[in-house]
Amino acid sequence: MTDQSGSSTTRRGFLQAGLAAGGAVATAGAARAAGDPLITEVQPWARFTGVGVDAVPYGLPIKFEDDVIRRNVPWLTAETMSSVNFTPIHALDGTITPQGCAFERHHSGAIELRKEDYRLMINGLVDRPLVFTYADLERFPRENHVYFLECAANSGMEWAGAQLNGAQFTHGMIHNMEYSGVPLRTLLEEAGLDAAGTLKDKWIYVEGADASSNGRSIPMDKALDDVLVAFKANGEALRKEHGYPVRLVVPGWEGNMWVKWLRRVEVMDGPVESREETSKYTDTLADGTSRKWTWEMDAKSVITSPSPQSPITHGPGPLVITGLAWSGRGAIERVDVSTDGGMTWRTARLAAPGQDKAVSRFYLDVDWDGSELLLQSRAMDSLGYVQPTKDALRAIRGENSIYHNNGIQTWWVKPNGEAENVEVS
Amino acid sequence: MTDQSGSSTTRRGFLQAGLAAGGAVATAGAARAAGDPLITEVQPWARFTGVGVDAVPYGLPIKFEDDVIRRNVPWLTAETMSSVNFTPIHALDGTITPQGCAFERHHSGAIELRKEDYRLMINGLVDRPLVFTYADLERFPRENHVYFLECAANSGMEWAGAQLNGAQFTHGMIHNMEYSGVPLRTLLEEAGLDAAGTLKDKWIYVEGADASSNGRSIPMDKALDDVLVAFKANGEALRKEHGYPVRLVVPGWEGNMWVKWLRRVEVMDGPVESREETSKYTDTLADGTSRKWTWEMDAKSVITSPSPQSPITHGPGPLVITGLAWSGRGAIERVDVSTDGGMTWRTARLAAPGQDKAVSRFYLDVDWDGSELLLQSRAMDSLGYVQPTKDALRAIRGENSIYHNNGIQTWWVKPNGEAENVEVS
Repeated sequence: MTDQSGSSTTRRGFLQAGLAAGGAVATAGAARAAGDPLITEVQPWARFTGVGVDAVPYGLPIKFEDDVIRRNVPWLTAETMSSVNFTPIHALDGTITPQGCAFERHHSGAIELRKEDYRLMINGLVDRPLVFTYADLERFPRENHVYFLECAANSGMEWAGAQLNGAQFTHGMIHNMEYSGVPLRTLLEEAGLDAAGTLKDKWIYVEGADASSNGRSIPMDKALDDVLVAFKANGEALRKEHGYPVRLVVPGWEGNMWVKWLRRVEVMDGPVESREETSKYTDTLADGTSRKWTWEMDAKSVITSPSPQSPITHGPGPLVITGLAWSGRGAIERVDVSTDGGMTWRTARLAAPGQDKAVSRFYLDVDWDGSELLLQSRAMDSLGYVQPTKDALRAIRGENSIYHNNGIQTWWVKPNGEAENVEVS
Repeated sequence: MTDQSGSSTTRRGFLQAGLAAGGAVATAGAARAAGDPLITEVQPWARFTGVGVDAVPYGLPIKFEDDVIRRNVPWLTAETMSSVNFTPIHALDGTITPQGCAFERHHSGAIELRKEDYRLMINGLVDRPLVFTYADLERFPRENHVYFLECAANSGMEWAGAQLNGAQFTHGMIHNMEYSGVPLRTLLEEAGLDAAGTLKDKWIYVEGADASSNGRSIPMDKALDDVLVAFKANGEALRKEHGYPVRLVVPGWEGNMWVKWLRRVEVMDGPVESREETSKYTDTLADGTSRKWTWEMDAKSVITSPSPQSPITHGPGPLVITGLAWSGRGAIERVDVSTDGGMTWRTARLAAPGQDKAVSRFYLDVDWDGSELLLQSRAMDSLGYVQPTKDALRAIRGENSIYHNNGIQTWWVKPNGEAENVEVS
């Protein structure tokens, strides 16, 4: 800050504020000349009228933010047209992910499906196989919930050690949105599920309308619990790339099960053991056997800033360390942050009490002395589960997997503020 | 729904579900042919690969939703380049408003201001006048909160009776977003506010960097309470039209005070009595005198569907009535809905417990008999305040005002499903 009174910049005010921060906090800012023309002189944008309201009936981010976009990693997926990109979490704050920059993963590309052409069939072990139009779905009682979606392969490259240099690429296969939709339970009951016999051992098989169909089996307990047939995200219609007009929301469970362009729900006696739940989305252990039905996304966190794509651009003094934490098994209870590679930990401040199966934003406000940092975060959820180190995960799960890596991430922040993806043991 | 088993459609399942709805609920859907090719035959979108992830690094809504946009009313504001448009609340669900379709109001148009050129001065009755850069602001401890912003003129045309035919136009000067920013309190304390004498009778005057400057006075109690200096909305940078890179967030208070492109905060002994708080944004009563400092937005609600822009497109049977409610003085506690113009009321279902100074979504699931409806909603907040009728408001406030109309809105829904803005006495 510039002190306009001419006296030297002081740390008193900020120190006295007694802010609810975990670490040392001191005054921000570099001294600048008192006669800064950007504040003392009338600037062009104050001389002339700006753009009127008719300019953009539906707006996009300002051009100065054109680097805050979904990005892919060309070598990561071999297929030509069915790939993945990543949410720019390094540049976001808060918890909501705008649909426009929320990561995409398609197995046969994003399709264009009109509401008028949309159909959802419920069949199999039900009293009455039913076909719903979009207009039918709109007539059932709706719910709203904020949930995160994380791809099972998020951080998958990290099994082999620090590889991708940025939180967007290591942890960006996640988004967090407010969904509006109809509980799947309601539609299953409408089809007369109750007459199909004991529910506890039944399953559903869900398919999308795209060429991949991306079929997945879901046990009935979950189907009747909190699964939503959703048509809105963050208030508006699902975007094409997020399953317009209808997708499944399977709270806390791996993203692949959140079938987009939802076309069919079949009630069955057992799981289908489809491609997407056998050769894919299973976890091969060191002995060559595989874990399957690893649906729930364990508690995880990542520091989004500072990070390789969001370096420190100032000198020593106050520094905001921030990141995201989530658990597919409940709410985030606590996040600890280490600046020394896990030797010592401080409890971060959660911006709001953790919500069930939704992302939490955490902050740690520190007084940076300008020396290097080994930044880590460690999430704890409402079940008491503590996010493990990558080594602890490897000891149990081996190094053959590409899925379900929720190990603690390390950013090496150098004295010049730049950061790198590293691993500490 | 189509019953694929060939038996007639039945209401049993839906009725048995025992859904938590306030009204009568029966089964949805019209009977369709069992051999619907849209579900029985392979469609083009299942034959071919769709669009890959590189298509849109930052996405927009699908083309089929191109009517869900901000709209203006050409005759409403006389000025050429400083006007207002409206959020398409009739087409949204949930509570979050995407920035892209959140209403705009500018007093000198939307300006383009780079982060590098951004400065915020705090001056006046402070120990140390300070100038902050954007990078400085990023070093202070941040908070996240969801708040609504409502323009004081929202529903203003309704003082003169039912005029604009759609919830977007009568109630669309509102949005509800998750903000990330620094408490203004922190910055005032950094400038040494504590040495400026007794705080209780002090004021701040806030200005934007645009040509209008849109200066407003805010009492110190509010400034030190929950006002935020915000740089993100719904996770990402503020859009240009919402004040990029920094706007003031004044929770629960009229939108005009949420100064965009925030440039200066001056601590003063009293209010400035600027144009925007004397000739504008005051409420002229029947006797010609005016109420001023009417900052807080009283509890209010509106049914967003059915509504003139969102008619009922199906026959009798299950109907979802939904809308938004909010209060600038606290949280929404309850919303009642009437289908007979206010003679009888049923308590609607809130999608989530009310949050302080944020929008609540409500639903009432009814069994529509196909006859005409006079739909109204009535909000109650955590202070026990009940949204009044328009007539009750006029009895106290007269008909000279254009601001702060929080009267109960009526939609006349006809047997054919179309709806009109009407007023009942």
